[in-house]
Amino acid sequence: MICGLRPGQKLRIVKYLAYGWSSKRSRPALRDQAAAALHNARYSGWQGLIDSQREYLDDFWDNADVEVEGDGESQQAVRFGLFHLLQASARAERRAIPSKGLTGTGYDGHAFWDTEGYVLPVLTYTLPHAVADSLRWRASTLDMARERAAELGLKGASFPWRTIRGQECSAYWPAGTAAFHINADIAMAFERYRVVTGDDTLEAECGVTVLVETARLWMSIGHHDRHGVWHIDGITGPDEYTAIVRDNVFTNLMAANNLVVAADACNRQPEAARAMGVTAEEAATWRDAADAVSIPYDEELGVHQQCEGFTKFAEWDFENDNKYPLLLHEAYVRLYPAQVIKQADLVLAMQWQSHAFTPEQKARNVDYYERRMVRDSSLSACTQAVMCAEVGHLELAHDYAYEAALIDLRDLHANTRDGLHMASLAGAWTAIVGGFGGLRDDEGILDIDPALPEGITRLRFRVRWRDFRLVVDANHSHVTYTLSDGTGTELTIRHAGEELTLKTDSPTTVAVRPRKSLLPPPPQPPGREPMHRRSLAREDS
Amino acid sequence: MICGLRPGQKLRIVKYLAYGWSSKRSRPALRDQAAAALHNARYSGWQGLIDSQREYLDDFWDNADVEVEGDGESQQAVRFGLFHLLQASARAERRAIPSKGLTGTGYDGHAFWDTEGYVLPVLTYTLPHAVADSLRWRASTLDMARERAAELGLKGASFPWRTIRGQECSAYWPAGTAAFHINADIAMAFERYRVVTGDDTLEAECGVTVLVETARLWMSIGHHDRHGVWHIDGITGPDEYTAIVRDNVFTNLMAANNLVVAADACNRQPEAARAMGVTAEEAATWRDAADAVSIPYDEELGVHQQCEGFTKFAEWDFENDNKYPLLLHEAYVRLYPAQVIKQADLVLAMQWQSHAFTPEQKARNVDYYERRMVRDSSLSACTQAVMCAEVGHLELAHDYAYEAALIDLRDLHANTRDGLHMASLAGAWTAIVGGFGGLRDDEGILDIDPALPEGITRLRFRVRWRDFRLVVDANHSHVTYTLSDGTGTELTIRHAGEELTLKTDSPTTVAVRPRKSLLPPPPQPPGREPMHRRSLAREDS
Repeated sequence: MICGLRPGQKLRIVKYLAYGWSSKRSRPALRDQAAAALHNARYSGWQGLIDSQREYLDDFWDNADVEVEGDGESQQAVRFGLFHLLQASARAERRAIPSKGLTGTGYDGHAFWDTEGYVLPVLTYTLPHAVADSLRWRASTLDMARERAAELGLKGASFPWRTIRGQECSAYWPAGTAAFHINADIAMAFERYRVVTGDDTLEAECGVTVLVETARLWMSIGHHDRHGVWHIDGITGPDEYTAIVRDNVFTNLMAANNLVVAADACNRQPEAARAMGVTAEEAATWRDAADAVSIPYDEELGVHQQCEGFTKFAEWDFENDNKYPLLLHEAYVRLYPAQVIKQADLVLAMQWQSHAFTPEQKARNVDYYERRMVRDSSLSACTQAVMCAEVGHLELAHDYAYEAALIDLRDLHANTRDGLHMASLAGAWTAIVGGFGGLRDDEGILDIDPALPEGITRLRFRVRWRDFRLVVDANHSHVTYTLSDGTGTELTIRHAGEELTLKTDSPTTVAVRPRKSLLPPPPQPPGREPMHRRSLAREDS
Repeated sequence: MICGLRPGQKLRIVKYLAYGWSSKRSRPALRDQAAAALHNARYSGWQGLIDSQREYLDDFWDNADVEVEGDGESQQAVRFGLFHLLQASARAERRAIPSKGLTGTGYDGHAFWDTEGYVLPVLTYTLPHAVADSLRWRASTLDMARERAAELGLKGASFPWRTIRGQECSAYWPAGTAAFHINADIAMAFERYRVVTGDDTLEAECGVTVLVETARLWMSIGHHDRHGVWHIDGITGPDEYTAIVRDNVFTNLMAANNLVVAADACNRQPEAARAMGVTAEEAATWRDAADAVSIPYDEELGVHQQCEGFTKFAEWDFENDNKYPLLLHEAYVRLYPAQVIKQADLVLAMQWQSHAFTPEQKARNVDYYERRMVRDSSLSACTQAVMCAEVGHLELAHDYAYEAALIDLRDLHANTRDGLHMASLAGAWTAIVGGFGGLRDDEGILDIDPALPEGITRLRFRVRWRDFRLVVDANHSHVTYTLSDGTGTELTIRHAGEELTLKTDSPTTVAVRPRKSLLPPPPQPPGREPMHRRSLAREDS
């Protein structure tokens, strides 16, 4: 039937579009899936689709929102980041979350340690089912990681530095395969998921296998010297300007953590452990190695060495050799043996393994490494924000947080056309919640210690911990914790270093701990200071 | 005119063949060269050509021959080696001497440090004009080496790890470009030529330029730490199973030597130095760095560390991981951080920079490193022969000398089809003359200290020193030095650690110093013991 439309009449066309993709299922199966989606859409109708989408997003924001009063741009940026994390992960459906999500062709669609190291920590507190899904994807590649380890003459499993489906796609091994820390980053993500959600089923389902195989990898990479000290030699840490090193502090602490977590997991999952042939003796060697791990420290300077010998490497001539990013202008033969750092490495160790450093060490380490870090990676600013905040350089931290958050909204690296920087967008949350909220979780307890910079008058963020929903609402003098949901009525957290028991029946308000800095704010390499957020903000006004 | 040949008559045809090749000259010029050679040949006739060839070879053997009594195979092998060194070098005509000479396609015709490190030392004592020619070739590539240094962000000149015409042809930099020691090896070859021949003209012509530019390279690679110790980090020494290391003793000693030699050369060639802008201040920084060079030593074990930390690296599991050569079966991620050594490295340092080690250190170092060296390079056996002989393991040294010498005659590495191993053939001379003759020259004086293994009853070798011709004739109890030619009538050498003045008017006979070993002969990694020469000899009988 053909109808004509007369002047003044309206025709409303509602068009439903369904999409399916698979590299495994048959065409008919895919066609059926799309047809079923269309059928459902027609059944619920346009308004129904809008309503369910809104409901879904409302629920997400209810769990995830961060409110930053006084700094409108950071407010916008942290929400922009959270939205894109949701986009990249909520329907990943057991495929990798690539470093650009699905927003661009940068890095050829590869996933890196960015996923477990930067993206999943945020999602663990805001969208935990997406974390479980992502970790299941990682676990599904275990056989390939086992083959890779065997290919390298190593035991256990060695996950790829860059990959799409699980194969190692990294050609240049000093800054690829040798960055074995990705295995410990994955282990940490499993353990954080278990601790924060309280859900042991993922560990039982696949986590314990990954933990055991990565523990075995570390045992075959590391070794004890004749004094019983456990070393990891010939590897590369997060800083890709210093490769093939001995005893990288970050890697050593993370590997030790991986070993202990694996041993604990075997106690919780004895049958799975037995099936993998883990004996009490084997697990004991993991704990022994972790206990004996070498942590290079320069007694004279009173700072940790990023790796053995680092504080005696040549100083970089920042005055003259300063075309950034250095990797496009300098040869590795010069970068590798110099005290020039691409991205947070020792500083990242202080965030992720916070308990392994005293406050004084943190202050001195931040002071030492800030002067030598050129931030040629987008993974760095958020970490520098967190640690600068912790040691009391709150204004500097605010600038770093701003840089991490605005990377794509302002195209700060001039490459947003290649896709969004998922890790840095996640880092916006981390910089604000981990930095100014002071959230840490590396000791299995929710640790919060807010301290706001001048430009933020009030910070309110939501996290999930076990079945609880917690709203943290801080200003410059006080913080109010509001607990709801949950299976019980109480939750003990750590506030400003002291245990504090929260109750679901009423909010708890306590004073914030004044943040004093041991040392004045350090300078950065000339030209690599973080962009001052106020100067940036002024451009827009 | 056509002539017929009747039965019983003879026709003798003498056919002369001339050959010329050039990548630079015109075809007519090449044709003229070949035509001139043919003209000369027809003029001198077949017998004339044979006579001049014989005269040339007689003269060579008169300067170069080594006589090994009691060990017929080594006798044959060392002459085979010398003949092939002559073939590879006498008419190289300012082109590189490749690692296979012109005998095969192995290593694609590339030249390595083998030339200056292994081949030229022998030729310096036997065919010095070929050394000058070869070093002139190296100097002719200086501009390319300068460009390479600039490309790497370094000063001075960086000669290529592998090359045909001067460009770096090495792709895998951890075991290529990072092996910067080739620059010091070249400097050593220039200096040895000057000291042994007494000819300063090569230094004036091109040597001083190479020495200055390599010194500048080292100054830009190395650095002082805050205690004033001079380090070289991020480089690779001769042992390609341990790469990108800190303070490789071999490299550090060789670089220090390069710096001092360059400073001395500038004093001898003040005009050339001035033309290159070398000030007294610059030369002083070279000497200062050399004085302050870091030489890692493990006080507890009483041995030098091949590189910083080496004696605390993981021990290799020789019982289980022993498919040789390891480089075809093991990943670098396992080899690099382990105490498994491809080829003499610290042990080579003790040969080339002999004065930097005490006899006790040499004995303990040989004992330590013999147990960890798998000799997956043909450059190793000759050096192990020399140092085992020096510390008194004469039978072990004889086995190594045999292995180095017979490598191609017996096809010991099963790859002689790819071409002869020039460095190992040169090593036959070095093993016998340096090992059993005890010849050293790293202190600018001819140092001889003979000690024969059981299987050699008498060793006679000829060397040139300045204008002198010296025949060294040793048996198990005495050595006779016969000096001839020369511009004077006396030459002071060092015999068995003591100065000894030789005269041209009569031979000098002195007792040999009994060779005692501080430690028993060390074992090698299982399966990597040198082939026992007697068991090999028996196969032939």
